[in-house]
Amino acid sequence: MQTKYMFQKTAIVGIGLIGGSLAAAMKQQQLCPHIVGIGRSQATLDEALALGLVDSVSADMSVTTGCDLVVLCAPVAQTQALLGAMKQYLNAHTIVTDAGSTKQDVVAAAKAVFGDSHEGLLANFVPAHPIAGKEKHGPSAADATLYQGKRVVLTPIAETHPDAVNRVQALWQAVGATVTRMSPLRHDTVFASVSHLPHLLAYALVAQIANSEDAETKLDYAGGGFRDFTRIAASSPEMWRDIFAANKTAILKDLRGYQAMLGHIETLLITDNFAGLEKLIGKAATVRQDWGKP
Amino acid sequence: MQTKYMFQKTAIVGIGLIGGSLAAAMKQQQLCPHIVGIGRSQATLDEALALGLVDSVSADMSVTTGCDLVVLCAPVAQTQALLGAMKQYLNAHTIVTDAGSTKQDVVAAAKAVFGDSHEGLLANFVPAHPIAGKEKHGPSAADATLYQGKRVVLTPIAETHPDAVNRVQALWQAVGATVTRMSPLRHDTVFASVSHLPHLLAYALVAQIANSEDAETKLDYAGGGFRDFTRIAASSPEMWRDIFAANKTAILKDLRGYQAMLGHIETLLITDNFAGLEKLIGKAATVRQDWGKP
Repeated sequence: MQTKYMFQKTAIVGIGLIGGSLAAAMKQQQLCPHIVGIGRSQATLDEALALGLVDSVSADMSVTTGCDLVVLCAPVAQTQALLGAMKQYLNAHTIVTDAGSTKQDVVAAAKAVFGDSHEGLLANFVPAHPIAGKEKHGPSAADATLYQGKRVVLTPIAETHPDAVNRVQALWQAVGATVTRMSPLRHDTVFASVSHLPHLLAYALVAQIANSEDAETKLDYAGGGFRDFTRIAASSPEMWRDIFAANKTAILKDLRGYQAMLGHIETLLITDNFAGLEKLIGKAATVRQDWGKP
Repeated sequence: MQTKYMFQKTAIVGIGLIGGSLAAAMKQQQLCPHIVGIGRSQATLDEALALGLVDSVSADMSVTTGCDLVVLCAPVAQTQALLGAMKQYLNAHTIVTDAGSTKQDVVAAAKAVFGDSHEGLLANFVPAHPIAGKEKHGPSAADATLYQGKRVVLTPIAETHPDAVNRVQALWQAVGATVTRMSPLRHDTVFASVSHLPHLLAYALVAQIANSEDAETKLDYAGGGFRDFTRIAASSPEMWRDIFAANKTAILKDLRGYQAMLGHIETLLITDNFAGLEKLIGKAATVRQDWGKP
């Protein structure tokens, strides 16, 4: 029996953990007979090919010619340059999507590059954010099961063609993810609060301790609370610089809200209002204890 | 062969996770032939006895009579009242120690209660902080192996008798812990930075998200970073209110340092100084990646 593929030729730009895992899952699910990995580093491309994540590799964007699916899995700051580099090879049947952690900047990049196109490139661009990650990086960290049970948020805009959104949704569902949709603004607001600000706060705490007197002793006595609180402070600085830049407005708003919260807590401490402090942390403890319960 | 016990009669005040685990470990290692658990809740005492953590239980402090070891494992705010309640039953051979997360307040409580004693009670009081914990509480969470490989910090003062410190050190070493010593001030300064402030920051983040518009959606999309960052925000509000109160001065100093750090980061964002931001978070990422490596 001949498999009916979801896509005929796929290009994945950036073939590390996120892109490599998607490629591996697509191959495992037989969603596409030919997946080409595109990247700048020949070592990474060689590794992805050797691991069997993709069918071929290239450092040249011209291999997107004839693709009906292109997935950008590179840092978000590169989105506009990459879309510009591939534009001449795309056609009215090419669906382009991405895996970036911020969405308003990705939408702006797509509009800037595809907005004047008469071939419907903007209509076929589907902004997406798979909520998945691991502490490891690179093709060797790729895992065909990475997206199983994970969430993917699609943030289509007015110009996006519903068929393109549905096809990208079907792709992520086929690799095991649950797909939801929201506006790019709401996406960036939500993730500023629950992901971007926490990363900033964790980096800030480690930086403060590292800069303090007695830093070595402090790190020596740091225990399990510190370990979990700061785990995300080991994340890639380059990637997070890009996210902080891309979602600066929402992050600044949350950062100021957090500073106000800390100012409030400081006042509770100074005035020995420990009943008020207990009420505040008690509410937080209840929310956190209930979080994630069915 | 008759076992030579380290202590002849031990009272453990507060027989939950910390006290119950110590009792269980002392029995396992045959460090004491009779361990009595003291507590206010009859249900907790019954449970500790039924689990075999202790040999007997009592709600009455008079059972400390004749003990050569008393270990306080209650919230630090109760230290002074508990020491006052047991004082009349102690003698020149009773070593009293504790397991509190703060030490300057515990030392102040011991001085206030024992300072005027002519029986050397202050000399035999050894302030201690085992760095161990779990998310579970109560006698059922007690575990004879809890302290294996963990650290215990002793913070003796000028008045403390070296023999008493050595005997408490031997006790913790016998249940598998590594013992170090520092001053109460240095202890509280170090733990304000690596434990107390992180708890405050985690509570603050959860409180901010819970108070925000769209809180439900935000919590719904919160992922692994949020989970780890805020795990400590599920901790007991009563216990942490006491710690924040007990170590207020050091925590306020660190909180202000952290607010200054966030102000610096805010400026980097506002001025689009992403090279500066990358440098700051890159240093933090390196420190965090290297942390805990041998």
